[in-house]
Amino acid sequence: MRKEEKTILRTGNNRFLKEYNQAGVLDLIRLHGTISRAEISNLTGLSPTAAGKIVSALLKIGYIHEIGEGKSSGGRRPILLELKPNSFFSVGVDLDIEGIRFVLIDITGSIICHSFNRINKNLSFSDVIKKVKDITEKAAQDLKIDSERIVGIGISIPGIIDTENKKIITAPNMQWKDIDLETYFNENFNVPVYVENEAMASAICENWIGCCRDLSDFVCINIGTGIGSGIYTGGKLYRGVGGSAGEVGHIVVNEKGPKCGCGNYGCLETMASIASIVERVKNLPTYDSISKKYIQGNDKDMDFDTVLKAARDGEEAVKNILMESAKYIGIAVSYIVNVLNPSKIVLGKEFVKYADIVIDYIKEIVKCKALKHPESFLEISVSDIGENSSALGAAFIPLKILFGR
Amino acid sequence: MRKEEKTILRTGNNRFLKEYNQAGVLDLIRLHGTISRAEISNLTGLSPTAAGKIVSALLKIGYIHEIGEGKSSGGRRPILLELKPNSFFSVGVDLDIEGIRFVLIDITGSIICHSFNRINKNLSFSDVIKKVKDITEKAAQDLKIDSERIVGIGISIPGIIDTENKKIITAPNMQWKDIDLETYFNENFNVPVYVENEAMASAICENWIGCCRDLSDFVCINIGTGIGSGIYTGGKLYRGVGGSAGEVGHIVVNEKGPKCGCGNYGCLETMASIASIVERVKNLPTYDSISKKYIQGNDKDMDFDTVLKAARDGEEAVKNILMESAKYIGIAVSYIVNVLNPSKIVLGKEFVKYADIVIDYIKEIVKCKALKHPESFLEISVSDIGENSSALGAAFIPLKILFGR
Repeated sequence: MRKEEKTILRTGNNRFLKEYNQAGVLDLIRLHGTISRAEISNLTGLSPTAAGKIVSALLKIGYIHEIGEGKSSGGRRPILLELKPNSFFSVGVDLDIEGIRFVLIDITGSIICHSFNRINKNLSFSDVIKKVKDITEKAAQDLKIDSERIVGIGISIPGIIDTENKKIITAPNMQWKDIDLETYFNENFNVPVYVENEAMASAICENWIGCCRDLSDFVCINIGTGIGSGIYTGGKLYRGVGGSAGEVGHIVVNEKGPKCGCGNYGCLETMASIASIVERVKNLPTYDSISKKYIQGNDKDMDFDTVLKAARDGEEAVKNILMESAKYIGIAVSYIVNVLNPSKIVLGKEFVKYADIVIDYIKEIVKCKALKHPESFLEISVSDIGENSSALGAAFIPLKILFGR
Repeated sequence: MRKEEKTILRTGNNRFLKEYNQAGVLDLIRLHGTISRAEISNLTGLSPTAAGKIVSALLKIGYIHEIGEGKSSGGRRPILLELKPNSFFSVGVDLDIEGIRFVLIDITGSIICHSFNRINKNLSFSDVIKKVKDITEKAAQDLKIDSERIVGIGISIPGIIDTENKKIITAPNMQWKDIDLETYFNENFNVPVYVENEAMASAICENWIGCCRDLSDFVCINIGTGIGSGIYTGGKLYRGVGGSAGEVGHIVVNEKGPKCGCGNYGCLETMASIASIVERVKNLPTYDSISKKYIQGNDKDMDFDTVLKAARDGEEAVKNILMESAKYIGIAVSYIVNVLNPSKIVLGKEFVKYADIVIDYIKEIVKCKALKHPESFLEISVSDIGENSSALGAAFIPLKILFGR
C-alpha cells in the first residue's frame, strides 16, 4: 500500500470527509485486490463501525462486491471485498489526425472493448465530437450499459489544453485553436467529460497500469504525427504554469535540419516524428523503386507501415532514415536526462512499431551523450501499451477522480 | 498568508505535533511581520490557550519578542509579536574555485556580515572546510555570538550533491569526488551543517527573499565558472531521482562548438560560462593589443572583470563574444521554456555583472525561438541578489528547517 492512504482518510475539508473516506476506501480495495472490513479498519485507522458503514455504502452503489470468506486469524472467517467487474465503466478517446481511438474500460481497469475509427481529415471539431458520441452510444448499446453506469469520458487531444477550463488552446496538427469545449460536451454527453493533452494522458496511463507504476519522476515521450511528452515530478503530472510543459518535440537536434512549424530549424519533430520519417523516405533518390516495390495499388500513398515493411525487408536507405531519427531521439533524451534526472523515460505510441529496430541505438546514444550521474539512474523503456496509451490514460481520468487520486 | 499554514498545524505525526505547531507559529510570525496572539489563534485554528502556550515557549527561547500594543478591535489592545532581530543566526557559505563566499544572517533574514575570501586553488576539501571554520569562528567572535545562537550552517557546492546523506558525488571544477562530509563537519562544527548544490541554493534564495517569492514553477540559472540551474516545480525544489536535476550547462547549443568536459561538443557551458568567455577572448586575433591596453602589470592574467572593462570600453570583438554567449543562453532558455513552461527564469551569479549589455538580446532570442504559448507565460529576470545568492540560499536552509518549511 502506498504511504498516503492514511492521510487521505484523516485530513481534508470536513464537509467532504465522507466522500474523501469513501474514495479512499475504494482506492484501498483497488490497491489490495481483495480485502476484509477488518483490514480496511486497521489500515485506515477508521473505527470498525465507520469502515463498515463506508463498505455498506460502496456495496449499495455497486462499486464493490463480496466474494466469499478469507482466512481466519483467530475468530470468524472474514468476508472479502473486491471491485465489482463490469459494474461501472469509463470511456477514453484519443483524437488524432488519423482517427478516433476509442476504449471502454470497467472500474477494475479491464478493457471491455476498443476500436479505431478513421475520420475524414477535414472534419470540424463539432463533427468529431458527434462521432465520439455515436461510437460511445453504440458501444454502450451493444454491451447494454446504461449511461448511469458510465462514470465519465476522458478525451485526449494532441495539443495544448487548458484542462481546468476545458479549452483547446491549440492543436496544430488538427488545426484546432481556441475552442471552448463545455458547450460541445453538454450538447452531446450526459456524463462528466474531461480533456487532456495526449502525451500527458499517456503518462497517466503508464503511471496507473504501465511501466511507471510507483515511479514519481519519469517522462513519457510519444512519437507519432508529432512528438510530445508527459512529465511526472514528485509523483504528480507536471503541467507547467500554462499547461504546456513537455514540449520536447521542439528541442533543436539538428541545426541544419528542415524548418519546423514553430519557426526553428531541425526541431526533434522535424527529424524524428512519424510524419517526418515518411517525408524523408519520399525524398530518397531511390524512392520510385521503393514505392513500386512496396506500395500495392496506384492510388495509395506511402505511409509509415509501408516504410517499416521496406526497412524490415532490408531497404538500407529506409532503415538508415529510421536509425538517424533514433539518433535525434537519443540526443533529445540526453537533454531531458540532464535537466530532469528522471528514473525512467518511456517511448511510446507509434514508436512501439519499430522500437525493436532502434531502441538499442537510442540507449547507446544516451549513454554516450547524457551526463554520467543522471544517466546511471535512468532506465529507457518501450511502452508495453503502445498506441492505446492516450485513450486508456484518458479513460483513467474519471476513475482517478472516483478513487480520489 | 499562504494556504498550507493551517494544514501544517493540524496534521502530521502526533509525537511531533508540538514541534510542528511551534515551527508553524514561528513561520506565521515571520510571514506577517507583526502579529498578536489572537490573530495567531484565529489564523491557525489553535485555541487561544494553545496559541498562548506556543507563543510563551517561543518567547522563552528568544526567537520572538513583544514590541508593544497594536490596534484594539473592541476590547484590550493586543500585544504585538515579531521575530527578534539578532537573536539567532544562520551561516551560509558558497564554495567556488575563486574562493569562499561567507554570509551570516539573523533569524529575520537580515545580512549581519558577509565576506569573500580568496583561496589557493590547490587546497583540499579538508583545508577548505578548516578555512570555513576559521571564518565562521572569527565572525562569531567579532559579533560576540555564542555557538548556541547559530541554528546551523549551509554550504553551497558547485557539483552534484547527495544532500540527504551529506556527500559530494562530484564537483568537477573543484576536483572533488565521492566525499563523505559527515566526518569533516563533526570534526569542525558543533552546529548542524547542511550541503546543497550551488544553483539549487540560489533557487532557494530567490524563492525565500528574491524575485521568485510566491512562485511555484521557476528556474534559476547560474552563470559562473560553470552553468547550472535550480528548478522549482509545484512550489518545491525539484532534485530528480539522483539529485542532479537542472544540469542545463550540458545542453548542446552549438554543434560546431568546442569539446566539453562531459564529452560532447558545444554544450552551453563551453559557449557561455564565464570561463569559456574569458577563453574565447584570449583566442581573439587582436588579443595582444587588448591585453596590452587593459591588463596592468605583467603577472596578471586576463580575467572576467577585465573582459567586461574592455567590452564596456567599446572593444567590438570582445562585446561580440558576450553577445554570442547571450545567444546561446537564449537558445538553452528556449528549450527550458518549451520543456518546463515556467513562470520565470532568473539569470544570476556572475551574469548580473554584464546583464545590462545582453539581457534584451536574450529576451529577443527566447521570444523568437521558444514556442509562443509557454513563452507568453514567461518572465525573464536578472537576479537582484547576484553573487551572494548561493551563500544566502545556503544560509536559509537551517532557517527553513526552523520555520518548518
